[in-house]
Amino acid sequence: MFKQITILAPGLLGSSLAMAIKDHGLADKLVIWSRRAETRVKCVKKLICNAVEDNIKDAVCGADLVIICSPVDVIASIAQKTIPCLKEGCIITDVGSTKSLICRNINAVVSRHVTFIGSHPMAGSEKSGIDAADSKLFLGKPCFVTPLVETPESSLEILIKFWSELDMEVITTTPEKHDEIVANISQMPHLLASVLCSYLAAKDSNWKNFAGNGLRDTTRIASGNPELWKTIIEQNSDEILRAINGFENELQSLRSAISNNEPFEILNILERGKKYRDRLRS
Amino acid sequence: MFKQITILAPGLLGSSLAMAIKDHGLADKLVIWSRRAETRVKCVKKLICNAVEDNIKDAVCGADLVIICSPVDVIASIAQKTIPCLKEGCIITDVGSTKSLICRNINAVVSRHVTFIGSHPMAGSEKSGIDAADSKLFLGKPCFVTPLVETPESSLEILIKFWSELDMEVITTTPEKHDEIVANISQMPHLLASVLCSYLAAKDSNWKNFAGNGLRDTTRIASGNPELWKTIIEQNSDEILRAINGFENELQSLRSAISNNEPFEILNILERGKKYRDRLRS
Repeated sequence: MFKQITILAPGLLGSSLAMAIKDHGLADKLVIWSRRAETRVKCVKKLICNAVEDNIKDAVCGADLVIICSPVDVIASIAQKTIPCLKEGCIITDVGSTKSLICRNINAVVSRHVTFIGSHPMAGSEKSGIDAADSKLFLGKPCFVTPLVETPESSLEILIKFWSELDMEVITTTPEKHDEIVANISQMPHLLASVLCSYLAAKDSNWKNFAGNGLRDTTRIASGNPELWKTIIEQNSDEILRAINGFENELQSLRSAISNNEPFEILNILERGKKYRDRLRS
Repeated sequence: MFKQITILAPGLLGSSLAMAIKDHGLADKLVIWSRRAETRVKCVKKLICNAVEDNIKDAVCGADLVIICSPVDVIASIAQKTIPCLKEGCIITDVGSTKSLICRNINAVVSRHVTFIGSHPMAGSEKSGIDAADSKLFLGKPCFVTPLVETPESSLEILIKFWSELDMEVITTTPEKHDEIVANISQMPHLLASVLCSYLAAKDSNWKNFAGNGLRDTTRIASGNPELWKTIIEQNSDEILRAINGFENELQSLRSAISNNEPFEILNILERGKKYRDRLRS
């Protein structure tokens, strides 16, 4: 599908993506750039690409598709560094879990000879780094693609086809709508898990030995990398705060219903929650 | 270990318990009482016991151990009905996930010829009923046993041995301490999942198609039976409200940190949460 794809800054997502691209035969040549020598050595050992570069400009030279897989706070600066070296017609995208700020910052600096379109494959894990890479990480998962009104239709189609070829279900929306949706269905739920664990950490440390599967499942994502999540919060703070406020209002309703001994209102909230959960795809 | 064990009102827990007792050979005779004809037929078909009774007094007659597996709000009244029919020295227990109110109510009516001691095996599922029964449900899970000061040591030892034989890890504590612990590590987390789903139910219904594993895991327990959970809340409302308040204070800290753009405080909460979660046993 592409003569050359270049992946920049592979962590869990980037290295899993390299493996998936190889498995699906989507690139004649797959190049990886990492600033860390240790990661470059692992990429070679794991045979997940055709070339590994320590110079970012060499890495993107000749690429038809460049995918930035770094933490969200450095995506725009990596893009800015590489844009002058990209060949005419190159598509550049990213896998960051926030979109508005990234798309705004990159589109302010992008040249006419290339196209930037944001992506967010909703695949991940509480684990991180190349050692946890998994070529099947993307299978059947949703992937947001966030074009702007001025994005050329042809480039958008190519990018949608790329993610679809990896068996992802592509959703096209604006960066702003993406950020609202993801704050609600992913980032705020993650933060609730973190806050729950942070709250319980102040309790008797023996209690955690009594925890059942419920607490374990509910809090799994709280094991995610705090540094990565801090930058995600910073990049999408307005939508996350709105989602937290909405959740808190609902929690207040339950609290009042319990305080005031209102069984029908308690049941109402529990039933609404169950109905929603039962309809989540497995 | 016992000549006769009688299980009253088997749902998921009671029928799983019957299967586990059979597997471990803990009773010469296992009797089940259910008020529902459909459940009695299933008990016979599944061969999970030696006798099925539709009369509760016949079911408990001759038992050395009686285990009440009904929803928490009817445990005390079932106990009260059966106590006059129990043989001298019988131990009666339950599997309810609240303990203070149940232990208080039953000990107010228990006769001297038998001993009631509350139990709470921390095993369960978002599923319910005999069709979801699983003989391995209890393996390696915690089980609370909540004696009172006046509980005879010999009866307590027998009950602890019973749960231990099912490969459960027994924790002995007061009913009140149990309720505090479980409100924090089980009931409040369950309610957060319900409230999160209830909140999301009011959003665009397409959003749930974009959910990743994070939301799915975080909210799995929200599929639990609302009627059962409503009664659990009613029976342990004080401790649950205290736990919700504690959680809300922590959530407020995160919200302030985000609003005021305090990266170190955000990181602090995320790191405290990760450290706690990483130490939860798998």
